[in-house]
Amino acid sequence: MSVKITTKEQAQKFLDQYDDFLFDCDGVLWQGNHLLPHVPETLQLLRDNGKRLIFVTNNSTKSRQAYTKKFEKFGIKVNKEEIFGSAYSAAVYLQKVVKFPKDKKVLVVGETGLEEELTEAGIPWLGATDAAYNRVADDEALSSIVRDKSIGAVLCGLDFHINYYKIANALIQLQDPETLFLATNIDSTYPSHGKLLPGAGTIVGTLETSSGRKPVALGKPSQAMMDCIKAQFEFDPSKACMVGDRLNTDMRFGEEGGLGTLFVLSGVDTEESIKKEDAVAKPKYYADKLGDLYELLKN
Amino acid sequence: MSVKITTKEQAQKFLDQYDDFLFDCDGVLWQGNHLLPHVPETLQLLRDNGKRLIFVTNNSTKSRQAYTKKFEKFGIKVNKEEIFGSAYSAAVYLQKVVKFPKDKKVLVVGETGLEEELTEAGIPWLGATDAAYNRVADDEALSSIVRDKSIGAVLCGLDFHINYYKIANALIQLQDPETLFLATNIDSTYPSHGKLLPGAGTIVGTLETSSGRKPVALGKPSQAMMDCIKAQFEFDPSKACMVGDRLNTDMRFGEEGGLGTLFVLSGVDTEESIKKEDAVAKPKYYADKLGDLYELLKN
Repeated sequence: MSVKITTKEQAQKFLDQYDDFLFDCDGVLWQGNHLLPHVPETLQLLRDNGKRLIFVTNNSTKSRQAYTKKFEKFGIKVNKEEIFGSAYSAAVYLQKVVKFPKDKKVLVVGETGLEEELTEAGIPWLGATDAAYNRVADDEALSSIVRDKSIGAVLCGLDFHINYYKIANALIQLQDPETLFLATNIDSTYPSHGKLLPGAGTIVGTLETSSGRKPVALGKPSQAMMDCIKAQFEFDPSKACMVGDRLNTDMRFGEEGGLGTLFVLSGVDTEESIKKEDAVAKPKYYADKLGDLYELLKN
Repeated sequence: MSVKITTKEQAQKFLDQYDDFLFDCDGVLWQGNHLLPHVPETLQLLRDNGKRLIFVTNNSTKSRQAYTKKFEKFGIKVNKEEIFGSAYSAAVYLQKVVKFPKDKKVLVVGETGLEEELTEAGIPWLGATDAAYNRVADDEALSSIVRDKSIGAVLCGLDFHINYYKIANALIQLQDPETLFLATNIDSTYPSHGKLLPGAGTIVGTLETSSGRKPVALGKPSQAMMDCIKAQFEFDPSKACMVGDRLNTDMRFGEEGGLGTLFVLSGVDTEESIKKEDAVAKPKYYADKLGDLYELLKN
């Protein structure tokens, strides 16, 4: 049974249990372009109490560095090391989990976030926003596609510049079972521009369908991402709490990782959703919004 | 138990049973750019015996008219009316099966084959190769996407010019459950340029994943295509035979439609595949190649 935090005592007891707080961003800190109430104050209160903050996002189109600008826009100060995006997750996974060979390259289907994180990690890559891949899939282009043995992995994320040539080229690499297949995340849609637009899962799906292979997904709720976070931050899961607005990604992610969970009602899922018999996750705590912690504890 | 046709008597008995012959093309008539032995002679022999020929292809990038040129290149004379491609199948389905309303338009994700067949059937369409859809998915483009109530169906096939803007725009139309969702076919790959390239199913899959909807598929082995062929040609299935090289498309297509089936070993699947316990289809007849009919019957 999830406990709703509505009193100062409950809020204090909740705080005392955890040293590390992992946050989903959209629906928790902000909603689209709108900052949610008392978010900066709550984050400051956590910092003042010596808590460590980690911001976890499936957005792979921006690097951690670029993502700090989004926080700045809302007047929230964070440093790059507090952000854990799926592009960075992919770089950590390649470096620390699979120990990607130094003589191989990663073929990237995606945006600059992936380029920047791989470059920073010293992992050679090709593809992504390179203009040579922005190519019409005519006979010449399709004839030119061959298996490139220097490619050891295909890493696919949301790509606003997807085209048939890129899909075909990545497929030919994946037809070799020695090529790793990684996905930043497999969200089918994401909210943007006031609507639900095709998510990374849509782009990844083109390679899944054509290759008949399943990728290792490096975003929530995949535990591969949790493994990367644990490898990076070294924390005790029982003293960490995942905060999020979605049961099937954030709350499952925290639960399966052995963390405490705080579900907030300021995003996608509702209070009813956690009361269903077949709910995909049963959060330990929930609250109307993250800012309630500050409102309850400020005096 | 499938009967292998190896004698003149068997070939004659086979021929006598059927009035109509439906042919898959690649792997039956030709292999890539290479005509298979005695194909023109076999087709002529069937014509001389008063048989009706129907060439069935999942290729939606070419209209029937354009597809006749492929036959001509191999020295085979066919007329447009003998060809049944998945683009034409879609037009027939819209016209005869769902009786698509005259005041609605079809949003096409695909190539000129779809444009030409819809235009010939008098069905208004938009999208396809129109340069306005060859658009970078920037903020302006994504902001401009709205549900267009004049669109009554999204029809998706293989699209060598796929881009994120097209996928997003089609998705927004499909989020309205009143919009029909049609696919020319859902083949995950197709052989071309000496390799297996992403098939229509790869493009269709982007819309399936993001919308959570299943399309009506109008290519083999979908019986929606068989219904369209039957609506067009009015034949007795028990007096018709489907000839093909693939069990999971051609042979299933014929079997489920109540037709006789002839499996040829000149394409994708092998003799072993029909002897498996769990074979997806059990062809009535099989032969090394289509040309065997001519070779056995010529004297």
